[in-house]
Amino acid sequence: MKKLIAVIGAGDCEPEIYDQAYELGQLLSENGFTVVCGGLGGVMEAVCKGVKSSNGTTIGILPGNETSEANQYVDFGVATGMGIGRNIIIIRSASIVIAVNGKFGTLSELAFALQLNKPVIGLNTWDVSDQILEVKSPQEALIKVKEILNNV
Amino acid sequence: MKKLIAVIGAGDCEPEIYDQAYELGQLLSENGFTVVCGGLGGVMEAVCKGVKSSNGTTIGILPGNETSEANQYVDFGVATGMGIGRNIIIIRSASIVIAVNGKFGTLSELAFALQLNKPVIGLNTWDVSDQILEVKSPQEALIKVKEILNNV
Amino acid sequence: MKKLIAVIGAGDCEPEIYDQAYELGQLLSENGFTVVCGGLGGVMEAVCKGVKSSNGTTIGILPGNETSEANQYVDFGVATGMGIGRNIIIIRSASIVIAVNGKFGTLSELAFALQLNKPVIGLNTWDVSDQILEVKSPQEALIKVKEILNNV
Amino acid sequence: MKKLIAVIGAGDCEPEIYDQAYELGQLLSENGFTVVCGGLGGVMEAVCKGVKSSNGTTIGILPGNETSEANQYVDFGVATGMGIGRNIIIIRSASIVIAVNGKFGTLSELAFALQLNKPVIGLNTWDVSDQILEVKSPQEALIKVKEILNNV
Repeated sequence: MKKLIAVIGAGDCEPEIYDQAYELGQLLSENGFTVVCGGLGGVMEAVCKGVKSSNGTTIGILPGNETSEANQYVDFGVATGMGIGRNIIIIRSASIVIAVNGKFGTLSELAFALQLNKPVIGLNTWDVSDQILEVKSPQEALIKVKEILNNV
Repeated sequence: MKKLIAVIGAGDCEPEIYDQAYELGQLLSENGFTVVCGGLGGVMEAVCKGVKSSNGTTIGILPGNETSEANQYVDFGVATGMGIGRNIIIIRSASIVIAVNGKFGTLSELAFALQLNKPVIGLNTWDVSDQILEVKSPQEALIKVKEILNNV
Repeated sequence: MKKLIAVIGAGDCEPEIYDQAYELGQLLSENGFTVVCGGLGGVMEAVCKGVKSSNGTTIGILPGNETSEANQYVDFGVATGMGIGRNIIIIRSASIVIAVNGKFGTLSELAFALQLNKPVIGLNTWDVSDQILEVKSPQEALIKVKEILNNV
Repeated sequence: MKKLIAVIGAGDCEPEIYDQAYELGQLLSENGFTVVCGGLGGVMEAVCKGVKSSNGTTIGILPGNETSEANQYVDFGVATGMGIGRNIIIIRSASIVIAVNGKFGTLSELAFALQLNKPVIGLNTWDVSDQILEVKSPQEALIKVKEILNNV
């Protein structure tokens, strides 16, 4: 089974955040990782777009009742029908969680990830715990991902 | 239908936090409010115990598959079988959310409450948003609850 | 903690089914039982109305994001935000499940109840298992409820 | 986005059922379809094994908290932590649902699929609705899948 890397962030975001998420998706994909996210816009769309730019695979855990709400870069859409209650499923499915900026939805996901002791990497995100490995760039996030997987 | 006040906090806590949650439950019940919580120990148990000390009603939204895991002060147990994924249900069911201290589980609930624009009162809890109405005591929390309900 | 009796059935139904569900609610309430249901119309409304006619307590496990969608006879509304995914929560929370007629939603609940080995009483409902205790009237359903609880 | 075909059935099953599910997975994969299922044993394992035998892709919507419980033929595991409450997610995510025999869990999934008006194909499964397109073999199921997708 493929390990999944969750990339979490807000459904709408500033262009520079979008670019970072896109680059992160690209880097993860180039290095063979599959990305799981919330499947909608903003950071979620950006990371999926980045992954697809280098032919990787993307999974969207969607809030609504239909897979059709997924952004166009989602390969496999999972329709939970649970609204933001689906956030926990993104976290449970991931081996590592990377937060890119983010608002309250992202905060709920960070909280779940921290409670479940998942490895969490933060790129300009909520500063709520020392357990979050802070990074300054997508490149640095990738390095952390590799370190974590080597140590498991 | 009765409006529900959610009281959220950690499943294990220091004695002084326990006492505050107990007192909060007592005050809410004396003023006719019904409390919903996660139904387990710590702050959840304390607030339910306080409510029952003045003959109020408590509802526990439980993580497990069986209602038998509820603390002994829960009147009505709802077994979700969703683990910490049940946190969103506590928040959705509440008209007002009061956080008493709390750890990562509480943080996820605060995040959901803030995302959904629920009124949030915080007693010595996570400082993650100006939307949280900070109070210093259970008495002050009760005053805020009344203010909020009068303004709805 | 109060044991909950789940009454399940369709959101819209024929008048004679409505009357049976109403009578069932009345009988359960007169005998001290608390009813949990899906909180909406049809059989769910009828059973809640029956319970309230004799001052009992009703809990509605609702599909939507807001408790305001509950029928007017629900005392405590739990807003799951999970759509029909909330059906499993009704079943998990109940000690006994009584099906009154019902369509596909009821069938999903029956299936969960049977899978979880909950006692199931059926009044003119889906004939999918010998585990379902078939009854002909609300009165007979009440007798079965009492028998089951005495044997636990 | 790839359309997903859900294959549902019991977690343990007779060898002939296992063989049918395996063959169904093989046929679906050879024809370019991606399969979503509950990710565990029995029919779920068989269909995933069949899909992988011809290099297709499998998605497992898992009941537990960890993806590690997936059968070895699942490519992408989604850990819901919802137990059998996850059944609705399998159905919501699918364009077409194919039931292979099955017990009560399968019945709950059939009920959800029928309630949501998803196309449902049944191979030796619960006879609960005329909406279920009955087939006698995996080959016939494949023909139905193609017919349905051509008519959408």
